[in-house]
Formats: sequence, structure tokens, C-alpha cells
Amino acid sequence: MLKYRQALNIVLEGARPIESEWVALSCARGRVLAGNITAQDNIPYNDNSAMDGYAIRTADLKSIPRDLKVIEVVGCGKSIKKKIRQGEAIAIMTGAPIPEGCNSVIAVEDTELVSQGIVRILRRVEPGKNIRRSGEDVRKGEVALRRGAIVGPAELGMLASLGRNKVRVFQKPLVAILITGNEIIGPGERLHPGKVRDANSFSLSGLVEKFGGLPFLLGIAPDDKVELVRKMKKGLKSDIMIISGGVSMGRFDLVREALTSIGYRERFWKVAVRPGMPISFGYIGRVPVFGLPGNPVSSMVSFLEFVRPLMMKLMDRPVDLPIISAVLRTPVMKKDNKRHFLRVKMDYRDQKYFASLTGPQGSGILKSMVECDGIAVIPENSKALKIGDRVAVQLIV
Amino acid sequence: MLKYRQALNIVLEGARPIESEWVALSCARGRVLAGNITAQDNIPYNDNSAMDGYAIRTADLKSIPRDLKVIEVVGCGKSIKKKIRQGEAIAIMTGAPIPEGCNSVIAVEDTELVSQGIVRILRRVEPGKNIRRSGEDVRKGEVALRRGAIVGPAELGMLASLGRNKVRVFQKPLVAILITGNEIIGPGERLHPGKVRDANSFSLSGLVEKFGGLPFLLGIAPDDKVELVRKMKKGLKSDIMIISGGVSMGRFDLVREALTSIGYRERFWKVAVRPGMPISFGYIGRVPVFGLPGNPVSSMVSFLEFVRPLMMKLMDRPVDLPIISAVLRTPVMKKDNKRHFLRVKMDYRDQKYFASLTGPQGSGILKSMVECDGIAVIPENSKALKIGDRVAVQLIV
Repeated sequence: MLKYRQALNIVLEGARPIESEWVALSCARGRVLAGNITAQDNIPYNDNSAMDGYAIRTADLKSIPRDLKVIEVVGCGKSIKKKIRQGEAIAIMTGAPIPEGCNSVIAVEDTELVSQGIVRILRRVEPGKNIRRSGEDVRKGEVALRRGAIVGPAELGMLASLGRNKVRVFQKPLVAILITGNEIIGPGERLHPGKVRDANSFSLSGLVEKFGGLPFLLGIAPDDKVELVRKMKKGLKSDIMIISGGVSMGRFDLVREALTSIGYRERFWKVAVRPGMPISFGYIGRVPVFGLPGNPVSSMVSFLEFVRPLMMKLMDRPVDLPIISAVLRTPVMKKDNKRHFLRVKMDYRDQKYFASLTGPQGSGILKSMVECDGIAVIPENSKALKIGDRVAVQLIV
Repeated sequence: MLKYRQALNIVLEGARPIESEWVALSCARGRVLAGNITAQDNIPYNDNSAMDGYAIRTADLKSIPRDLKVIEVVGCGKSIKKKIRQGEAIAIMTGAPIPEGCNSVIAVEDTELVSQGIVRILRRVEPGKNIRRSGEDVRKGEVALRRGAIVGPAELGMLASLGRNKVRVFQKPLVAILITGNEIIGPGERLHPGKVRDANSFSLSGLVEKFGGLPFLLGIAPDDKVELVRKMKKGLKSDIMIISGGVSMGRFDLVREALTSIGYRERFWKVAVRPGMPISFGYIGRVPVFGLPGNPVSSMVSFLEFVRPLMMKLMDRPVDLPIISAVLRTPVMKKDNKRHFLRVKMDYRDQKYFASLTGPQGSGILKSMVECDGIAVIPENSKALKIGDRVAVQLIV
């Protein structure tokens, strides 16, 4: 059977970055930059004061204390014409431009006003002190932000500082989600024996959004080829299509028949992983299609391990989740040669992460997903593990 | 001067959880539950098969292999009336309800179809095997999700499984943001000496949204008391008001005068922290008001350390950012008795986090915020630190 890394390589090998679009800066949070951002001006624009105080000439401070004549007050937003001369000082606010001829700023705490218009300097100060230099944050022509970066609060601030009020970002990957199965009912409907409420529309949409995509819900298809084909065709307008619940016995024949009738070229359909071993991947035209297990946990884990990396590649982002090493607080059973993805709750103590399995790991146990903040990855060749053993944990929060 | 923890206690002491509202499940992602969610049914609803295979009576498997008569196929979404008898099996799909009389499921891989309607069981299986029990995920009456939990993908799935199509969440704290200063220009305007582009509207809005609030931009007020008062009054409809840039010399007198004229009761205005020492906090009526430094870095750091905890308390969430211990890759200068918040970039190697200062830590250096993924907290009584020393780092991504 295909190993996880082989299967993932198949998923990723055909992926190319998605198209980009312009968005207003105020709508850019969480989006991914589609190109480098180069500064068109120095930031700060001009040398300015880092302190409230007095702009002075250090040549005047040969002896301390020294009284200087305050010839002007320079506030923010103003630049002044007056030139400083020997024995003079200019009161200056944080952020205000350094007047010509001044080479240092002395903080207001290091002075006292001795009389109207005369300030006493109480401390010596080196040339250049308390001055923020033009271009000290970003120089004109410098790459301030890189393609593939997520636009968070600091990036928003940076883009605004650079005068960008729109920005080129990758389109959100459109991920179509088709739920299959006669047993699945919508959230408003009444449960009765044999029926199961549709959780996957919600959990998969949530995952798509969390990782920067746009979910496109195709609804619930009954076990009927005509209806399956009709809904699948709608999904062909998307960047990725997920068929949820179409991989169990009997069902899969029907889903596969529907897929094949519209040109599905399957690349694999079983991978040596737990949960979620039966997972189908292929293409219809150029649209990558995943057949994921229908139970809520396998569905989410398969998404994280197969669909998320593809979404990341479409946006030129790193494909792997961040991984740390944790000490097991719970033993791990393992007899097979599959890769296991176990839901763990982490705690941090004495400079170490500890990982506890979130209760029974049955693929129906959605509680194990709710409580987890990491996925412990137990490699194919690993045997059972005991308390105190180290595991690699993918951080998912 | 007030220490950080004392100041934070003052900020938090008056805070009470905000009101709640009902939202549709499809709009609930990222919101915070305002009450516990109790299951009204078992999940799964009924005992069902964990495998594609055959529901059988283990009493029939005294000798192996054993041929059984397949009397029925039970798919998902159906419950069957037919009762199994000695020597019989019922083909069953994953998720289908366990027929009456069956006490185990044998996986299809452990069987072979020997002729039409006859299956050969190749392995023994214990009673209860491959059956997901009713209530195994969540029992009727159990608290499935707790007040204060963020609604992520797994919580969405859980809420859908529980049949909730709407959910009670805390309102998003409405955070008004007023930018002050004659020198500040909007993103469309042309830079010239002494002017600074407004970055804080964007970075502060981004932070408010990131932590679950709703930013309410009051715009840029010039250094004019009438205009300041007019805009501040609009902010009084919010849960928190931030005045950005009103704490430097000269400017502060004006902002304070404006605040005082509408009833500001200041609780503190200097805290022994870097960056962001001048920070004012108080109330107008019942609205908490922050005066934050105007430079982009102090502004973001002050938000993270003072405003974010208050937002969290309003939604009954843990107030502190997650903290890990990291090994310094860069020395840290420190001579004062303030608490320093330093921007660091982390890397993880050999089961340890390492933290490097993101270049110069000047409060104007927005690049230091863009590149950081953590805030190293250097306590008041700490001296300078050298490479290899441990620091506590708040994780902000």
C-alpha cells in the first residue's frame, strides 16, 4: 500500500500557484501576498525625534549643566525653516522632524526649564542620540514583505506605512465539498435510527476557511448516480473538490461510477494511514478531487494531512504544519505498518511539551478532535510507544 | 512607577463578561461560546458498524472457517426489521445500524464470498468488536462543549452533530480606534516632510479582529479639542476605546483635556514597561479607555499586553497568551527596572525553542513586528541577558 509521503507527493506534484487578485488593504487580513512588496519611500520618511525633548547641537554641551535658548517648538506634522545656531535649542515632540543643524535630541527628563525660553541641559548626550533615521525601518527599494506571507496585523501596518491601499494576494482556493449518503440528514431534520447528522459540511468548511480557502458547499447527495453526477459537475468550477463519505464498501462503487462517468482519473485510493486509510485522489480535467472517509474524525484528519498541504501549495506557502517534539503521557498501541495520526492534548511544563491522547481514538469520536491541539505523528516503522517516549506533534492551533 | 501586573490588574478588575447573541452555525466560526453545550441525544444515535463487513453472532464462530448465510444487506440510513438467526450474517456498511441479534462485526477483509449468498468467515472475532456504541462520542445530557471555547472546525462539527443550527456566543467586543495627530495622513495622501502615514488604524484593527473583536474606526483627529471631543463621543458606544498617539508631550495635554471634558476618570498613565511606558487607562462612564503610544510598535505591543487581556476577560477567555521557554540567540541589554517586551523570531531545534531578537528594537521599527512570532518578556528585576540564557516567550501566532 502507498505510504503517506508517496501519496502526498502525488497530491502535490501537479499543483501550481493559483491566480492572484487585488484587494483593498482593509479586506486583506488573513490573505497571502502574491508578490514581494518593495518600499517606494524610506520609512520613516525623514529623520525624526524618538523622544519628547529638545533638539540640540552636541558641540554646545562642552560643560554641563548648560543653559540653551529655546527658539522654537516643533510639533509633529510640521517641518520648520528656522536654523539653529550656537547656544540654541528647539523643543521637539516624539516623531517630529529633526530641524536642520541639530545633531541630537535630549529627553525632557534630562532638562529643566529655568526661565521663560531658557532650558537647562542636565546631561551630556552623544551625537545622533534619540534620532530615528530616515529609512531606519525600511529603505526605499528594500523588499519589506515577501510573497507567500500571510497578511496579519503587523503586515497591515507595514503596508499602510508604505502607502499601499490595495495589495495583490492569491485568490482564496475555492474548495467544493460534496457530502454523500442516504443516511445523512441536514441540521434541521429529526434524527431517527440509522440517520446521522451532517457534521462534515461544517467541520470541513471550517477547515477550508481556517487555512485561507473559500468553502463551496454542494450539499448532501443521496446514493443515486444521477444526483451525484449533477452535484459533482457543479464542483468542477472549484480549485479542489472533496467528496465526503464516498469511500466505504458499496458506496464507493457508486461514487466511483459517478466520478468515472465524468472523466475521473484516479491516482490512488488507499494509503497506509490511520485514520482514513481509504482515501481516493485523482483529477477530473485539471481539478484535483479527494474522496475522503465520511466519519467526522477521519474526514478532518485526512483534510489536515492531504487537502491542507495542497491548499498551501496553491498559495506558495510552506506545506507542512509546524512540528514540535513532545513527551507522551499516554501509551500508544501500534501493530501495523501504517502511519498513525493521533489526536493529542498538549501541556507545557519544565521547558517540555507533554502530549496526552484525547481519550479513545475511534474514528467516530469527534470529541477527540474538539479536545486536541495537536496531531501526534507515529511513523510507519514505529512500534507501540510507552509513557515518556518522544513523539513528533503537528501543531494545529 | 506602576509595575505591569499592577497596571493589568487595574485594567481587568472592572471587566465583566459582555452580552451574548444567537448566531447561525454557519456564521459561528471563530466566535466564543457564551454557555455550555449539552447533548440532547447520544452521539452516535445508535450502535453502528465501524467497518464494512458482516454483522454476525459470535456464538456461530465456534469453529473457523465458518460459512454463514447472508440474509440481508444493511446500508447506511436504513434500519432493518429482519432478525438474525443461528448460521446467518448480515452484510453491513460502515455507519449502518447494528441489526438486532448481532453482537459483532467482522471486517470484509477477514471473509470471502464462497457462493451467492454464502460468506466464509476466516477469523474469530470477539463480541462487541467493530461496533461503535450509541453515546460513545457524547452521551445524552453530557456537556459536549464549554462556555469560553472558541468555535473552530471541530466545534462546528460537534455542534452540527448535536443538531444545533444556531448557537449562543459572546458578542464581539466593539473596539473604537481613534488616531490622533496633525502629522498623520491617510493611505491615499502624499507624504511630505514631517508627515507619517496612518499605520495604526490597520494594525490595531487587525489585532482587534484577530482576537475576536469588531474594530470601529473613528478616523484621524487633528490636534484640535473640539474635533477630538466629537470623535471621542462616537467611541462611547463601544466596549473599549483606544486613543492612539495621544500620550506624547504637548499632545497629551490636549487629549487629556478633551477626555476630561467628557468625564474621563484616569486610573493610571505611566507603567514601567518598554516599549510603551506612557500609557493611559481610565473610564468614561463605563467605557474603558486606553491612551496608547502612537508609534507603530509600541502601539501593537501595548495592545497585546493591555487591551487584548481585557478583550479576553470580556469573553470569559484565558487572559494570558501561551508562554514557552526559549534559549536566547541574541544578547539582551537591560539597565532599568522596567518590564521589557522584545520582539523575537523563534526557531525550534533539538527539542528546544531558540529566540533571536528581530533586529533593532526601536519603537519605530515595524519590521521588528513583521518578523516576530513571539514576544520575549524580560521581567522588571532581570539584568542584561546573554546568548544561551532562557527567556519566557509569549506566542502570538
